[in-house]
Amino acid sequence: MRDSREATADSYFACSEVERAAFEAGIKLGSIYHQFVGVPLRSENVSTLEKAIEAGCKVQPFVESVSVKIDRSKLKRKRGQYDYVSLTGDMLDVALVIRYGGTRVRASMRLVEEMNYPLMYIESVEHA
Amino acid sequence: MRDSREATADSYFACSEVERAAFEAGIKLGSIYHQFVGVPLRSENVSTLEKAIEAGCKVQPFVESVSVKIDRSKLKRKRGQYDYVSLTGDMLDVALVIRYGGTRVRASMRLVEEMNYPLMYIESVEHA
Amino acid sequence: MRDSREATADSYFACSEVERAAFEAGIKLGSIYHQFVGVPLRSENVSTLEKAIEAGCKVQPFVESVSVKIDRSKLKRKRGQYDYVSLTGDMLDVALVIRYGGTRVRASMRLVEEMNYPLMYIESVEHA
Amino acid sequence: MRDSREATADSYFACSEVERAAFEAGIKLGSIYHQFVGVPLRSENVSTLEKAIEAGCKVQPFVESVSVKIDRSKLKRKRGQYDYVSLTGDMLDVALVIRYGGTRVRASMRLVEEMNYPLMYIESVEHA
Repeated sequence: MRDSREATADSYFACSEVERAAFEAGIKLGSIYHQFVGVPLRSENVSTLEKAIEAGCKVQPFVESVSVKIDRSKLKRKRGQYDYVSLTGDMLDVALVIRYGGTRVRASMRLVEEMNYPLMYIESVEHA
Repeated sequence: MRDSREATADSYFACSEVERAAFEAGIKLGSIYHQFVGVPLRSENVSTLEKAIEAGCKVQPFVESVSVKIDRSKLKRKRGQYDYVSLTGDMLDVALVIRYGGTRVRASMRLVEEMNYPLMYIESVEHA
Repeated sequence: MRDSREATADSYFACSEVERAAFEAGIKLGSIYHQFVGVPLRSENVSTLEKAIEAGCKVQPFVESVSVKIDRSKLKRKRGQYDYVSLTGDMLDVALVIRYGGTRVRASMRLVEEMNYPLMYIESVEHA
Repeated sequence: MRDSREATADSYFACSEVERAAFEAGIKLGSIYHQFVGVPLRSENVSTLEKAIEAGCKVQPFVESVSVKIDRSKLKRKRGQYDYVSLTGDMLDVALVIRYGGTRVRASMRLVEEMNYPLMYIESVEHA
């Protein structure tokens, strides 16, 4: 059930339901990237960070589900003090489902090697 | 003219041109919020920060124009060492135009006082 | 045992062991604040986020222990889509121990209400 | 002249003047790294970003001067929409002077190639 803040928010939008869902998907992927890139990372904390990114994303409006995988191939176990890296966008593999009204948008972010770029894209639009 | 990375990117999307433009708008607003919230702020650096946020946004794909205004009402001039604040989402007023193909999406972020929330929303969708 | 990257790092420093430990403490507190301020937050994800901040901090050099508590008094359980907040510095209570050589520095960050400011400070310096 | 918030802050510290200055230096370098890593970057906005990082740092307590240089060797001018990178720690070259009481601490952050790591370190401690 919509509460009054949702009704107020809706009154600001001048677009279709699907466009709104696509917009909300973009917000969440942009948020994940720019909030968490830079976090210190090693084998020991990678799954904790994945869970925190997922949990922080689910808190945001219209997120039906989200899955975050961080590429472990560049990670090391601790030997010396400086054996860790910083999270980069290239390491992120995110799958997100936004549900707004009767629409589901599936969006993802992952490294597209051909572009050497962590692409955010829409995989499908479904009308429930 | 599209280059080959753009063609590759396009091949990942399964949605309409307008939905793509709406998605790209969401990415940029989510990025601004989560990248820059927390920056130390005082009267002396507020316009420099506005320019840097705008310039960083224009670098991203399909941004036709962007304007960033930071609410100065909470800022102080320096007297003591601790006279500054951190940028919060409530202080941001952003107006963004995304152009993708023949579509323009105008999107904004600003504090909606009735919601006590910095809302990101789509103001208009235009077909050129 | 020190590895070669640690020896290289040490060769760059022109200060005492205690000053180095104090510097390392400052880095970690500045990192926590500016990395995580802005994360979307609700009762459901607050403990997951605390754990991720702690785990990300432990990965960094010379951190012996760290404890992160986020003030829950401003958090809500989900009813509407917009019922969440963004993490601010005022909500953070961090206690950190840096061990470098024979020195322990205990440092903290927490809201000092008298200053209306989330202060980072050194609580004690110990020579082991 | 110290104001009352500075006096309150000072009352929390249990360390020497030099240790305090070293701690303050660490905070600022940790802040720069974790606030700005991830910003979209191209030749067109690099100098604007350098200025904003410097200006945001000067706002913080006890910063006497700061200089930020971003490595331009990895940057491109815009041709296609995806021709930009994200700021990484490896690209940052920061020189900072903290003045606290009668002490000056010079600290830096820059890529140490031998370590493949953006090291933050103290270059000198001076008693005025």
